Amino acid sequence: MTITPSSPPSPREILTESLGQAARDIEATIDRLLPPAEGDESILIEAMRYAALGGGKRLRGYLVTEIARIFGADRNAALRVAASVEMLHAYSLVHDDLPAMDDDDLRRGQPSTHRKFDEAIAILAGDALQTRAFEILADRATHEDARIRIDLVTALAVASGAAGMVGGQVVDIRGEGKSLPLDQVKRLHAMKTGALIRYSAEAGAILGGADTAQRDAIIAYGRDIGTAFQVADDVLDATASAEELGKTAGKDEASGKSTYVSLLGIDGAREEAHRLSQQATQALTSFGTEAAALRALAQYIVERRN
Amino acid sequence: MTITPSSPPSPREILTESLGQAARDIEATIDRLLPPAEGDESILIEAMRYAALGGGKRLRGYLVTEIARIFGADRNAALRVAASVEMLHAYSLVHDDLPAMDDDDLRRGQPSTHRKFDEAIAILAGDALQTRAFEILADRATHEDARIRIDLVTALAVASGAAGMVGGQVVDIRGEGKSLPLDQVKRLHAMKTGALIRYSAEAGAILGGADTAQRDAIIAYGRDIGTAFQVADDVLDATASAEELGKTAGKDEASGKSTYVSLLGIDGAREEAHRLSQQATQALTSFGTEAAALRALAQYIVERRN
Repeated sequence: MTITPSSPPSPREILTESLGQAARDIEATIDRLLPPAEGDESILIEAMRYAALGGGKRLRGYLVTEIARIFGADRNAALRVAASVEMLHAYSLVHDDLPAMDDDDLRRGQPSTHRKFDEAIAILAGDALQTRAFEILADRATHEDARIRIDLVTALAVASGAAGMVGGQVVDIRGEGKSLPLDQVKRLHAMKTGALIRYSAEAGAILGGADTAQRDAIIAYGRDIGTAFQVADDVLDATASAEELGKTAGKDEASGKSTYVSLLGIDGAREEAHRLSQQATQALTSFGTEAAALRALAQYIVERRN
Repeated sequence: MTITPSSPPSPREILTESLGQAARDIEATIDRLLPPAEGDESILIEAMRYAALGGGKRLRGYLVTEIARIFGADRNAALRVAASVEMLHAYSLVHDDLPAMDDDDLRRGQPSTHRKFDEAIAILAGDALQTRAFEILADRATHEDARIRIDLVTALAVASGAAGMVGGQVVDIRGEGKSLPLDQVKRLHAMKTGALIRYSAEAGAILGGADTAQRDAIIAYGRDIGTAFQVADDVLDATASAEELGKTAGKDEASGKSTYVSLLGIDGAREEAHRLSQQATQALTSFGTEAAALRALAQYIVERRN
């Protein structure tokens, strides 16, 4: 048998492999941490599972597990925190899609939770996902392993991310049809999308017992890719089709929202996304080859098509 | 000056005094732990403050502080946990009142949050109150004092209460117009109202470092007064006026809900409430005079007019 010699994997291949593995592991962890749909409240659990399972890039969860890996944290503990962060993300999407908010019928190419079930169940499923996320963080089973530093500091970081998310959504829905200046749009997204991404990165660093300088570098990286992600999202909303996105496209312009695209133009927004992506990469200089996937992620985020 | 000799205070007077003091202290703590309404998201904070401040008996928070006091816990730590529990209670009321749920215009004699603001703000204010509650539990500032045993176990107890609450609400709205058997109504209320009351009592015991036997007694007490509270609520809904209640009266019958009253009759429900109240009192036997207020509370809960 002849073994074909192959070149070492490229950073993008490393990312694809570790992102895919993380997505599968996080999915399995969420599946395990959500109860099976049975009993009088089975419809609630069914809706929680519908909203939290079966989709998404798991970007926030991946940041937790990949950064935790770099600092040598236990993978099972990191997966629990990742599952918790993804449940918080899922709850925010369920509530954002509600008729009283963005009134969106599609999410990841499927009916949004209130369309699949009903509005009351969607509100309660979102509520229950948030509760379950914090319950998982508080559960002693999470830190049976003495090496694991999942504690109140991690929970606080995650809670700060969740708090920012809600504040950002308020500014967002209040800003519809109004012309917001660039600094206000930046602040809005720093809260709405940025907070949970940044704190997911920080939670990974806390789990791994990173020192202050390392933690600051990770926070800077998380902040920049969080913003880059949102700028790229605005570009996608303006340029991609609903089929590519798996959700309604062109919504920003239709609702008269101020976005990076409306403020900077498509080319200007693309440039800004790349600038942020490079800045995020620079924050990782001290981590060497260990951070290859995180660097590739910063690039992937601004080049993705959905 | 002549000092009129007075008899020692009755249990009811002790309760009135300590319940009133706790309500004032909890109110002040919530006020301090919610940010002032300013900045782009001031409307959100205004709605959070509207929903969480200025009303309510603070029964859940009182259970935390009074039980923590019996076991010698630090009052400031207990007040933070009490504020957190009351924020969770407030979030659940805001969401329960929404048009897609109970569609209630009145709460504590005032417009419900979605009537005062709008539906989107009410959903987000509820979400943010839940987040803030867990953020407070996770905040290191909570346990600067080494004597304080507020940790993940407390947070987990509170989260369990919050999780039960949502499950109960689902069974409740699904049960409207249907005839449920008594055991299902019991289970529903054990979750919807009972869980947070029971776990508030347990959180007080954990904070005070109660031993297992003491903790079990407190859990039994919390479970019984939680159920007694709900049975008495059903009686009040069937017998009191909206003015007395500060919320819409007679809603259960109008919506065809199975309640303790529809299943046991008004007299039967009153008897059941008193039986549970006595059972709760018996659970406190080993605590002696220290538990005078808790005993009076068990009685007050089934005799209150609102």
